[in-house]
Amino acid sequence: MTSTVEPRVLKHQIVRASIEELLDGLRVGDTVPSERDLAVRFDVARETVRQALRELLVAGRIERQGRTTLVAGPKLVLPLALGSYTEAARTEGHTATRILVGWTRLTADADLAGQLAIKEGDPVIQLERVLTTDGVHLGLETTRLPAHRYPGLIDTFDYTQSLYAEIAGRGITFAKAVDSIETTLPDAREAALLTVDTRTPMFLLKRVSYDPAGIPIEHRRSLYRGDRMTFTAIQTP
Amino acid sequence: MTSTVEPRVLKHQIVRASIEELLDGLRVGDTVPSERDLAVRFDVARETVRQALRELLVAGRIERQGRTTLVAGPKLVLPLALGSYTEAARTEGHTATRILVGWTRLTADADLAGQLAIKEGDPVIQLERVLTTDGVHLGLETTRLPAHRYPGLIDTFDYTQSLYAEIAGRGITFAKAVDSIETTLPDAREAALLTVDTRTPMFLLKRVSYDPAGIPIEHRRSLYRGDRMTFTAIQTP
Repeated sequence: MTSTVEPRVLKHQIVRASIEELLDGLRVGDTVPSERDLAVRFDVARETVRQALRELLVAGRIERQGRTTLVAGPKLVLPLALGSYTEAARTEGHTATRILVGWTRLTADADLAGQLAIKEGDPVIQLERVLTTDGVHLGLETTRLPAHRYPGLIDTFDYTQSLYAEIAGRGITFAKAVDSIETTLPDAREAALLTVDTRTPMFLLKRVSYDPAGIPIEHRRSLYRGDRMTFTAIQTP
Repeated sequence: MTSTVEPRVLKHQIVRASIEELLDGLRVGDTVPSERDLAVRFDVARETVRQALRELLVAGRIERQGRTTLVAGPKLVLPLALGSYTEAARTEGHTATRILVGWTRLTADADLAGQLAIKEGDPVIQLERVLTTDGVHLGLETTRLPAHRYPGLIDTFDYTQSLYAEIAGRGITFAKAVDSIETTLPDAREAALLTVDTRTPMFLLKRVSYDPAGIPIEHRRSLYRGDRMTFTAIQTP
């Protein structure tokens, strides 16, 4: 029975707990009292309240809409799985769509050529979209595809829909995906597209999907808002 | 061919790219030039250099040791899998051990009782340890076990070793684990134990492991340093 480190409880953490109790009594979408009102109510400095609210923002308990602070809904819970997050979110009863940021034609550098098993200099289509669920800008997804395999895609694909379904509709089967998952902070452009500030922790998911022959289908780099999203996964031996 | 949002490249991002080039020419463990030297070299304000270094710290490219800044090694890459991270890190050729933070005897509240499928008020053993790899404080793991199932554990378990192996050695088989993965910022105590500051994005992994009969074995809450760790996962249909 050893305890080598005693908790250091800071004043803003006590205030945070008090604000959380207050939030428990409110409903999703209700307005949170102002920083000044909370400072008066708990008899602490506004800076202490600001720090507590900052942590509650990162934790997804509250959200900012312009100058107003609201009680946030629960995080979106999605399985870390092969397949479409648009479809997974819709299955869970959420409205989900995509906003087009841009199509870009690239040529593969050595890294990308290796990942997509194409030649350096081969043409690549890049599609960048914001994934929104229930009106929240949840993720920024950048997909890179070997151009020769997807003729006409830029002209015909409805970017509000699932790219996964579009590719499957072209007779290509997703057999496997290899993911790496990191945390990161968004840069200024990413933060603007996702309507967060640059201090909000994000998931950075990089994925290469493969067909049954082991040929890469796509390379994807996805940034998901850590304050609005939880991944789930089931592990077996 | 639409591009609705133009990148806003900020000065510190240009400086960051220049520092990254400089880091590419150094080796792991080399000293990074001081903030002042970098400000002079790139002819920018120290605040601009500070912001660039801050991002490189979060990305795990550099690390602080006291007042010195060093080139960091690559992040530790571990599979998101059922099993022991101590053993996984050792398999990858890293030294890995555990530092005991403390054993605590708890009684289950309604939430914990539900997760461990025991009765409210039943005794629970809580073990809190820091996972270190290659001397880096990588994660803080809090494991909660139904006390009746693990007699003598507190007195006999070598906490530097894998708890997974200890439980398996008691004849209990891990058949499944259900994970949730979030991002978070550490509080002051967690940051001190992991030798980071409170602005470093972290993985928050919550896991319940089950035996073949579907009986919960353990509940675990793990905080892993996002600047030092990458998870990998393989998805199949």
